[in-house]
Amino acid sequence: MSATAKAGQIGRSLPRLEGRAKVTGRAEYIHNLRLPGMVHGKIFRSAVAHGRIRRVDTAAAKALSGVFAVVTSDDIRKVISNPYYGPAFHDQPILAIDKVRHVGEPVAVVLAEDPHVAEEAMRLIIAEYDELPAVTDEVEAMTSTVIVHDALKPAGIFPDLKHLEGRKGTNVALDFHLRRGDVKQAFAEATHVFEHTFRTQPVMHTPLEPMVSAAEPGDGTLTIHTASQSPSFVRMEVARLLGWPENRVRVKTAFLGGGFGAKLYIKLEALVAALALLARRPVKISLAMDEQFFTITKHPSTFRIKSAVDKDGRVTARECEVWWNGGAYADVGPRVTQKSGFTAAGPYDIDNVAIDSYALYTNRPPAGALRGFGIPQLVWAYESHTDMIARALGIDPVEFRRRNILRDGRPQATGTVMKDAAIDKVLDRLVQRLGWSRPFDRGQGSVKRGRGLAVGFKASIAPTTSVAILNLYADGSCGLYCSTVDMGQGSDTAMAQIAAEVLDIPAETVRVVHPDTDVTPYDMATLGSRSTYHMGHAVKRAAEDARVKIDALKADLGVPPGSNVPLAELFRRKYGMQAGNIVGVGSFVPSYASPDHDTGLTPNATPFWMVGGTGAEVEVDTETGHVRVARLINVADLGTPINPRIVETQLSGGAIMQLGFTMQERMEFADGQLLNPNLADYKIPGMRDLPARIESEAVDAVERGGPFGAKGVGETATFGVSPAIANAIDAAVGVRLTELPLTPEAVYRALRKAGR
Amino acid sequence: MSATAKAGQIGRSLPRLEGRAKVTGRAEYIHNLRLPGMVHGKIFRSAVAHGRIRRVDTAAAKALSGVFAVVTSDDIRKVISNPYYGPAFHDQPILAIDKVRHVGEPVAVVLAEDPHVAEEAMRLIIAEYDELPAVTDEVEAMTSTVIVHDALKPAGIFPDLKHLEGRKGTNVALDFHLRRGDVKQAFAEATHVFEHTFRTQPVMHTPLEPMVSAAEPGDGTLTIHTASQSPSFVRMEVARLLGWPENRVRVKTAFLGGGFGAKLYIKLEALVAALALLARRPVKISLAMDEQFFTITKHPSTFRIKSAVDKDGRVTARECEVWWNGGAYADVGPRVTQKSGFTAAGPYDIDNVAIDSYALYTNRPPAGALRGFGIPQLVWAYESHTDMIARALGIDPVEFRRRNILRDGRPQATGTVMKDAAIDKVLDRLVQRLGWSRPFDRGQGSVKRGRGLAVGFKASIAPTTSVAILNLYADGSCGLYCSTVDMGQGSDTAMAQIAAEVLDIPAETVRVVHPDTDVTPYDMATLGSRSTYHMGHAVKRAAEDARVKIDALKADLGVPPGSNVPLAELFRRKYGMQAGNIVGVGSFVPSYASPDHDTGLTPNATPFWMVGGTGAEVEVDTETGHVRVARLINVADLGTPINPRIVETQLSGGAIMQLGFTMQERMEFADGQLLNPNLADYKIPGMRDLPARIESEAVDAVERGGPFGAKGVGETATFGVSPAIANAIDAAVGVRLTELPLTPEAVYRALRKAGR
Repeated sequence: MSATAKAGQIGRSLPRLEGRAKVTGRAEYIHNLRLPGMVHGKIFRSAVAHGRIRRVDTAAAKALSGVFAVVTSDDIRKVISNPYYGPAFHDQPILAIDKVRHVGEPVAVVLAEDPHVAEEAMRLIIAEYDELPAVTDEVEAMTSTVIVHDALKPAGIFPDLKHLEGRKGTNVALDFHLRRGDVKQAFAEATHVFEHTFRTQPVMHTPLEPMVSAAEPGDGTLTIHTASQSPSFVRMEVARLLGWPENRVRVKTAFLGGGFGAKLYIKLEALVAALALLARRPVKISLAMDEQFFTITKHPSTFRIKSAVDKDGRVTARECEVWWNGGAYADVGPRVTQKSGFTAAGPYDIDNVAIDSYALYTNRPPAGALRGFGIPQLVWAYESHTDMIARALGIDPVEFRRRNILRDGRPQATGTVMKDAAIDKVLDRLVQRLGWSRPFDRGQGSVKRGRGLAVGFKASIAPTTSVAILNLYADGSCGLYCSTVDMGQGSDTAMAQIAAEVLDIPAETVRVVHPDTDVTPYDMATLGSRSTYHMGHAVKRAAEDARVKIDALKADLGVPPGSNVPLAELFRRKYGMQAGNIVGVGSFVPSYASPDHDTGLTPNATPFWMVGGTGAEVEVDTETGHVRVARLINVADLGTPINPRIVETQLSGGAIMQLGFTMQERMEFADGQLLNPNLADYKIPGMRDLPARIESEAVDAVERGGPFGAKGVGETATFGVSPAIANAIDAAVGVRLTELPLTPEAVYRALRKAGR
Repeated sequence: MSATAKAGQIGRSLPRLEGRAKVTGRAEYIHNLRLPGMVHGKIFRSAVAHGRIRRVDTAAAKALSGVFAVVTSDDIRKVISNPYYGPAFHDQPILAIDKVRHVGEPVAVVLAEDPHVAEEAMRLIIAEYDELPAVTDEVEAMTSTVIVHDALKPAGIFPDLKHLEGRKGTNVALDFHLRRGDVKQAFAEATHVFEHTFRTQPVMHTPLEPMVSAAEPGDGTLTIHTASQSPSFVRMEVARLLGWPENRVRVKTAFLGGGFGAKLYIKLEALVAALALLARRPVKISLAMDEQFFTITKHPSTFRIKSAVDKDGRVTARECEVWWNGGAYADVGPRVTQKSGFTAAGPYDIDNVAIDSYALYTNRPPAGALRGFGIPQLVWAYESHTDMIARALGIDPVEFRRRNILRDGRPQATGTVMKDAAIDKVLDRLVQRLGWSRPFDRGQGSVKRGRGLAVGFKASIAPTTSVAILNLYADGSCGLYCSTVDMGQGSDTAMAQIAAEVLDIPAETVRVVHPDTDVTPYDMATLGSRSTYHMGHAVKRAAEDARVKIDALKADLGVPPGSNVPLAELFRRKYGMQAGNIVGVGSFVPSYASPDHDTGLTPNATPFWMVGGTGAEVEVDTETGHVRVARLINVADLGTPINPRIVETQLSGGAIMQLGFTMQERMEFADGQLLNPNLADYKIPGMRDLPARIESEAVDAVERGGPFGAKGVGETATFGVSPAIANAIDAAVGVRLTELPLTPEAVYRALRKAGR
């Protein structure tokens, strides 16, 4: 499938194409957009976690001078009769209807030309609620009498969710089950059985550009300018809500100041669309940083994992029960439950596996995709569990992993036979870089040193489609149209390199046109590290299609196929002047077989596997509980890198993000209220929180199914960070933490509890 | 080549797709564009027709509060080293360099955030010139010692202009010569010889939206928003001026408030591009109505025509000498000279023809393409001449035409054999509608009545290329991307109908995406009534390509080809969700053979022929010279109309425009100055100037080479208006006018001169 790179554009550490525009302040962001006649919206949000709305008094807000309108769900229904949206379930109202289900849920919006007036008026709105009991814990939600949604409303377009339609009296949005081999018998025959439970906390994506969307009404059309990772989805979903054909809705993005999954599917887009139709003017909403906390979060989780081990230290069976705290609205949580669920048993060769994975509704802000799509939560559990077993059995944790590791050619839990997943290579390289076999300084005095590692893997979301168009202009210069959103990951550059390789031109000369659904063709979304593989293929095919057409043009003109007559000259000969285009089109959807509904098994679970591991060296201050990560090594299999330098920064970026989730970040709730919705109290890693040494490396590998041997990289370095550090802490001071984050307080308490 | 229309979308008088947006004020025009940080430019213009610039004092203008910058050609050269542009010759400086060559030539520009400040400052600029003698008449320019340009600078990309490079000491920009048969001998053997000379006046396009362009600098890129008929050309030419590849220049248009040829090639675009690069801010220039007079005009012309006629009233030979007054810069004038030149002998079957056609530089504002591209000037002459011969020979002018008319299968002057040119049918239908054989009321008292007719034809500009992309979205809805500019002619609607016919969907559901060189593919330009034929073919092919891909998708899914499974369902089956695109691409360039340089002959002069005729009934007040056109009948061959209602309005619109040029419009110059640069003194037809009866009709015809049998219509009704009215005046009162316009004063003087 993949040709070999010959033109020298693949494997080039070309600086990002947009680098100059960004550092000179010329890069385009939706935040800078001003439209004639535009009004700004400010959202009034629920102060309670669960309640029936008694009344919303907007009179004082409406009376404030400069207020254009105050809008509630009654108004929204004038333009959208059934205003519920969502990528998997149509459960989320554009503005709260009858009930609020989480703190910070949008209840009303003030529109004004001056955003400060809108904010002032927003503070004059009075809402009264009949408060209801709230359920906030994912395990409690399984059995709670507090039911967040009266009935389930899966999106009609997914056949595999249809059986959930109308299901009542449950908080389980989706349950995924996998059964392979005979788990019961394997446990009965086990030499050792280990069972642990791990938890992760609520955290947030924190893109430094908060969500921002604007909608501009036309004549029976609507243009949405939005900082979105999924313009094609926004168009489809807004068209569905309005009952319009897709070609009446235009969605444009620009550069994103980070996405990480926060800007997927619908966030503000349905709201601004409805407001623009009501106001008959362009409407823009820019969230403040604190509002992001109420918009989308990462799934808190509880993971009970139980393993059967034989006398040789081989894991013979594993039982996994995972509860995902999806918050008040499903967003893409059911997909996390399902798509990540089937890897819960880890990258190990285990014959007997049982997995139960549950997406739960609670009265918390909604949780969605966040860099890793559930995998970091799973790896946190299974790689902590792995070290705990090894320690209990007195086996070196590397040796224990090597005995059990999943190798190419062997079936994963779903039955899918592994290929091009260099799990063993990643482990080997980590071991090598850590100098595992060499003596290690264990520290002195109150500061103890330890090291640990962890390896994880992830399937790609499937099946998903990408389409690309490549346009060769009359002077031979080139425009590449694809709906992949460059949110900092360098996709513009990578796609330009792929197109340039096929066309044998410098990648710098390719102009990448940013997503605009009226311009760039369909792409499922920029998520799940799928773009390099999926869009990469589409771009490659579009360029190959263009080459075929160039050759046809040569043949038409009697120019020998091998000759290097410039394209501009070919056009001149063909058209009598500098004129014409060659348009190449490429589309790609991988083959895939969805898991069987009853067994969770499938012969083809993913187009490709992402494999990442982390090694950590830590220093633990036993007097304060403070942990310093001295060295963080990220090793990954990402096939053959398109751009090694960008790949390296993606690895270190992903690891640093997960480091924040591991060491410090946590949304703190008390009495249903969020206590720290700001970056002063919710601290993301700063320069002083970074390890002194961060090393990132791609192992020598090829993804045979990928374009020029490449595959995705955006999430891979997030997998192993948390358990590697927890394992290192255990190695340093002999205490085991099973809940994130690993704060000084948590370490201190664990040390005291262990009597150290 | 053309399939038969079956889906019912061709021949439908669908209201224009954009009608609602226009009447509700929602249609997008560049005039409404505001960009953040934008400054407005106001042009300081030459007050002399020809002069050497001694100095331009901008100090007072610069000192005015609120002025951002004052720019002269020295500044322009900082960003464009060789700032000369033009579609045929690179002769026109962005701002005057050393010399000015016509009144109103741009000399400097003031930039300010407030356009009123810019205008005030512009009035503070002082320019001093050493005035030079000026040449203004096209015939005098042939032999004048006043030379407008030191040397000719044809654009390098046209091989047929290369021989002119560097030619010195002449005002002849281009001379076209055609020789067929033995003219000399035919004249020697003639029974009768007739020779007349006709003249046309300088007039203007008067789009109600004056020229407007804005340029927005990016990071090594430039976006130009412009009311242009030729976005692809603007991109190519600005890229050439800047020395950039085309993919760094983006050109976007919107609806145009009329074009008529005034908004072709470069008008303000090179200027705003240079200003934006100098200012590092977006720059916009919106011309006032009076500035249009100095920007582009219609060629005044002098046409000496001489015919040899045998005893049977057959024209055996014709000699044509045409001088085109191109003004100070060539614009597309050389192409008018050449492309229209070869039809100067008219739609008659004449064995021996000699044509000499000259494009001349003078010290007048530049002349370019104007609805008809020179043809109305030619038809004015040859159809007046036709009636004069008939009258002299005592033959009915209809009968005289029938004896000589050019029929399909016979060679035109170039040697190209006519096909699908229903000249005879148009004449017949005019005769029928006028009731030519029935008695006619000749008026009474001082008001005399007369009637007349005229028939003309035009070749299409060739070879030119169009490319279209058709995008079928995941829900089956459709976007059509083409760079044809809808300037009021209804092209969006016609293109939607063509795509809809192929796809068998209602045309209303096709979304037409407006020209944006980053989005819509190459099109030569919207000019010369070429779009229906050229872009129509490209759109048809793009839709056919999409159909082929739909069928392939069906085959892939095992769906029988004839079955009507909706496309959205096919996509769902293919991609597992609502996803994907089908992208169809179509391009078209007609076959064509350029005229031989020496003889002007070619076997294939045009892809298709436009044929139009006009019948007029007039009332002449012999006391005042006032002429009232009581009835105006426009009959045309435009193949099979795509949208009969739009075609009809195009015919009446074209005829009314030419009526203005026939009866009243004239730019009045005295001492090199334009006396009437405003719509109070330069009067275009108002409602009270219109004939009581305007009738428009397409004859039953098929253009076999056209998409669904169609061809262009935008210019056809302009051909015959002027001579039909002059012929009617002659019929009414027996005086012959040979110079346009036919003002009451001119008629009055002619009547008095003739002693009537």
